[in-house]
Amino acid sequence: MLSKNTLKFIKSLQQKKFRKQEHAFFVEGSKNVTELLDSDFEITHILYTQKFADEHPNALRGFKGESFLVTQNVLQSAGSFQSNDAALAVAKIVENQPPIISKNELTLVLDDVRDPGNLGTIIRIADWYGIKNIVCSNESADFYNPKVLNSSMGSFTRVSVSYTDVYNYLLQVNLPIYGAFLDGKNIHQSKFSPSGVIVMGNESNGISDQIGSLVTDRITIPRFGDAESLNVAIATAIICDNFKRS
Amino acid sequence: MLSKNTLKFIKSLQQKKFRKQEHAFFVEGSKNVTELLDSDFEITHILYTQKFADEHPNALRGFKGESFLVTQNVLQSAGSFQSNDAALAVAKIVENQPPIISKNELTLVLDDVRDPGNLGTIIRIADWYGIKNIVCSNESADFYNPKVLNSSMGSFTRVSVSYTDVYNYLLQVNLPIYGAFLDGKNIHQSKFSPSGVIVMGNESNGISDQIGSLVTDRITIPRFGDAESLNVAIATAIICDNFKRS
Repeated sequence: MLSKNTLKFIKSLQQKKFRKQEHAFFVEGSKNVTELLDSDFEITHILYTQKFADEHPNALRGFKGESFLVTQNVLQSAGSFQSNDAALAVAKIVENQPPIISKNELTLVLDDVRDPGNLGTIIRIADWYGIKNIVCSNESADFYNPKVLNSSMGSFTRVSVSYTDVYNYLLQVNLPIYGAFLDGKNIHQSKFSPSGVIVMGNESNGISDQIGSLVTDRITIPRFGDAESLNVAIATAIICDNFKRS
Repeated sequence: MLSKNTLKFIKSLQQKKFRKQEHAFFVEGSKNVTELLDSDFEITHILYTQKFADEHPNALRGFKGESFLVTQNVLQSAGSFQSNDAALAVAKIVENQPPIISKNELTLVLDDVRDPGNLGTIIRIADWYGIKNIVCSNESADFYNPKVLNSSMGSFTRVSVSYTDVYNYLLQVNLPIYGAFLDGKNIHQSKFSPSGVIVMGNESNGISDQIGSLVTDRITIPRFGDAESLNVAIATAIICDNFKRS
């Protein structure tokens, strides 16, 4: 049976402080939980409803952690979803390890993307375009925030997201460093290298001057109307699409 | 002085029912209010702080409606923003008039895009790409929802959004009707007409069968990784970018 202490432990993971302390996080909903079960994450607890068990009869086969059959109400009180009639899973946080970028690979670097919805959406875009790694500045939204994981729509299991001092990280990169600015080279008129780094900036301030100084190729999405700017996730998607069409 | 009744009236406009009844809506924040002041919308009330007045000394010059100097607290209690130290403006809803599409023009048609954030983001994308009209099914998110207006980042003043029975509307269109599906023609390998309609579907179900039957050109965004789908606003942006580069 699910103890009060376990429920309290799960609830606490909505806060970054406790996720860090416990080296754990949770995901909610049928899609996220089944994606997590299919991934390399080490799952410690699963809470699920009878409905979930009926719809995914083999989902827990071979599962070695603790599992609890619960009501929808318990599920909703444990997690962040207003409505969840399926499942919730707790897993261990993986080690933070910024990648060494290999040739013929694109990597996204986020310079203070703070909105969890934006980060989650960017993870989903990276997954769509086959980008395996996202490197975030330490001030960016936390990967394990439930809002990030949820808006990634399961893609969080396939894209590696790490945190580091982005300036020092980029100093060691020996590939083109593309940065999205409002006054860069038109991406419709450019050919892109299949390997390199694409830097996207903060929602309000764009790429910082410090990081901008390391950008080798300033690029821009051409504008045909009057909007002042595009949302950072939207801009990321358009840029990735232009890189991949080359 | 701002009366309790006026405050109550403004608050009520957070609900679609009252916006419809009063033929009025409000926008919040410095950017939205200044954009509204620069637009053709008929503004009836402005609430503003001393800070806003100091930063925009000429904003209210020639303004004929009712204006009230208020505190930040009053502003926040009237509107939907957690934090608003600038202004809030009430304006009249404009007549709903689906456009007659002229040649050499692209129009977006939304088949049940229900999330207000998605609609607002799509309005901003349309504004970026110079698309003047968005036609929505009657079940789509309400243009005058504060979340829609806010996520449009001011673009709501430059893009006309109307509501209609989309099926009957499309029946009368004599131009290519493009629809985003997962199994359409690769947009990286297509040339697009400078005029026509792009149909985007519901967040969960995509384009309905009924509307799909009117689509003349099924198109798709090529996938390079493993994500199952893209968010509808993201997909809209990528498709608009591909149309405009042609």
